[in-house]
Amino acid sequence: MSLHRLQVALGERSYPILVGPGLVQGTPELAELAAGRQVAIVTNERVNGLYGGPLRGALSGASACITVMLDEGEQHKDWASLNRVFDALLGAQFDRRCLIVALGGGVVGDTAGFAAATYQRGVDFVQVPTTLLAQVDSSVGGKTAINHPRGKNMIGAFHQPRLVLADTDTLASLPPRELSAGIAEMLKHGAIADPAYLDALEDDMARLRAGDPAALAAAVLRSCEIKAQVVGADERESGLRAILNFGHTFGHAIEAGAGYGQWLHGEAVGTGMVMAADLSHRLGLVDAAVPARLKASVAAAGLPTQGPNWAAERYVELMSVDKKASQGIPKFVLLRALGQAVVRTAPAELVHQTLRACSAAH
Amino acid sequence: MSLHRLQVALGERSYPILVGPGLVQGTPELAELAAGRQVAIVTNERVNGLYGGPLRGALSGASACITVMLDEGEQHKDWASLNRVFDALLGAQFDRRCLIVALGGGVVGDTAGFAAATYQRGVDFVQVPTTLLAQVDSSVGGKTAINHPRGKNMIGAFHQPRLVLADTDTLASLPPRELSAGIAEMLKHGAIADPAYLDALEDDMARLRAGDPAALAAAVLRSCEIKAQVVGADERESGLRAILNFGHTFGHAIEAGAGYGQWLHGEAVGTGMVMAADLSHRLGLVDAAVPARLKASVAAAGLPTQGPNWAAERYVELMSVDKKASQGIPKFVLLRALGQAVVRTAPAELVHQTLRACSAAH
Repeated sequence: MSLHRLQVALGERSYPILVGPGLVQGTPELAELAAGRQVAIVTNERVNGLYGGPLRGALSGASACITVMLDEGEQHKDWASLNRVFDALLGAQFDRRCLIVALGGGVVGDTAGFAAATYQRGVDFVQVPTTLLAQVDSSVGGKTAINHPRGKNMIGAFHQPRLVLADTDTLASLPPRELSAGIAEMLKHGAIADPAYLDALEDDMARLRAGDPAALAAAVLRSCEIKAQVVGADERESGLRAILNFGHTFGHAIEAGAGYGQWLHGEAVGTGMVMAADLSHRLGLVDAAVPARLKASVAAAGLPTQGPNWAAERYVELMSVDKKASQGIPKFVLLRALGQAVVRTAPAELVHQTLRACSAAH
Repeated sequence: MSLHRLQVALGERSYPILVGPGLVQGTPELAELAAGRQVAIVTNERVNGLYGGPLRGALSGASACITVMLDEGEQHKDWASLNRVFDALLGAQFDRRCLIVALGGGVVGDTAGFAAATYQRGVDFVQVPTTLLAQVDSSVGGKTAINHPRGKNMIGAFHQPRLVLADTDTLASLPPRELSAGIAEMLKHGAIADPAYLDALEDDMARLRAGDPAALAAAVLRSCEIKAQVVGADERESGLRAILNFGHTFGHAIEAGAGYGQWLHGEAVGTGMVMAADLSHRLGLVDAAVPARLKASVAAAGLPTQGPNWAAERYVELMSVDKKASQGIPKFVLLRALGQAVVRTAPAELVHQTLRACSAAH
């Protein structure tokens, strides 16, 4: 696949997303952003070993370049990791014209992005996502955050990157579990916005799970197009953007309740979509074929389709602090058709029925 | 004095500043903002004892009202205090339509404001400043932050309040040291923007230090006018707004180096202005009368005019992480005349001379 270029259209905060092979070796856009500036690469040991060298080579025009290592795993998307970035930046006397480059998956991108949003009240940053999930979802759109023990992504900021480099070569190094987690967000984009894309993902599932470069690159591109369009229409989630949270009300509850890092984000979203589709049917919004199909797709992606065996009350308690909740009442992104999402509350009894139907027996 | 109303003009982020007596008992603007919303008052024990009751009365239209207590003192403008706010908000299931009300001085306002900037990626907040310093400076303009051990206000965000209520009655409860600290920022406004205001402050100094309500209210109003004008012209400090940092390059170094809370912010700014004026003269920007006059005014306000007896190298090291610094080289806000400020670097030797001249013998 050749290089593709998309644009997230947000006025003076607009930025390009490049999708294609070999991008960690550098691009003219990255070289221009880094020229003469203090640059900090935020990453983890494993990703640094794979791509840190080439990326540092691409940043040779920087006036200084430091690398900050975070621990791997969602349980480290916290204040301690954030502070590790601040300590490194201050220790190297980085000023407010510095540039932060996030090299890694969603944990690195969200943490580095929030550090960029708040270091000296905001500095520039670039996303170089190296997981499928980060390439198709978390690196695009400027949502940055760390977790709080009581809720996922509760502390954060909207802070758009200046550039996103989605190097599809990096997907070759991903373990199967991480590929599946990324496919969850791609299925989400199909389910909420593009039934033909959902069809294509289902048709290509074997190739996607096998890490076929062409299949993955095509899907990353389509997912980024959908995400860029939604974010361009509603940067700060005053309306439309909330549909990107399909599967996330249930999914965030699973992640927080199980302990961050036990479920991969994409796994929790996969199960969360099964639950949300089930609830959509119970509300009479879609017929039974829709949740059945989505459950089959999630299973085909190698993702779990059942939540932990908690009492419904435990799920509801966890969902009451979801960012879409209003005064403790959770809201759900639901389907009224494949490709069409709506955001609304639901009667507690139906939510309980969904939770009983879609979580492991207990 | 009657009620005065100013406007900070920032497009859709514009907001009113009300200056006058009795405002903690409530205003129509506050009641309208709070109606039907979850409201959290962030304050400290002492201020809560004085004004918490009336303010809660003014928020009776809220759907819920909690009070979060922070510890007093600049040394508590840190992550622990910030997290105390987050814990309380999440514990009470506050959603992203909640309202945070900062009741107190600069520490409360900066911490609560940064909590508002980052809780669920940003919620509304109101400033109810109860110290002179907060009324004339920190509550206006949307700069929020916490400190890092290596530098003051290093972690923060630009997040404008929806309303500022500067209740001049609250100044009657201030100890003399806090009055003096506030006068420092008022002298700053005169020095950088309005020589006639500086004249008036010097003439009124005895009344200001004695806590005369009319003198204080008039000065609060004029300082808020100056600050609102500068912020309206340059919200995110891409240029003009930096002049509000007159005295702050040296001052922040004193605060951080002495240990937060040892010097009041206004005290450090007072000494910092003496240093900045001295440096302005050494650079040939102003004649010797300007630093002499400013030093006399700072002394007349009851503020220190000499920095701690540290080696110049220690000061310079602390200033190298100032937010105006570029790649470790500090910049200074200097005077080229009373009422006219410029931002520039200075030769190290002159900075050292100023530090030796303006810090205690060592």
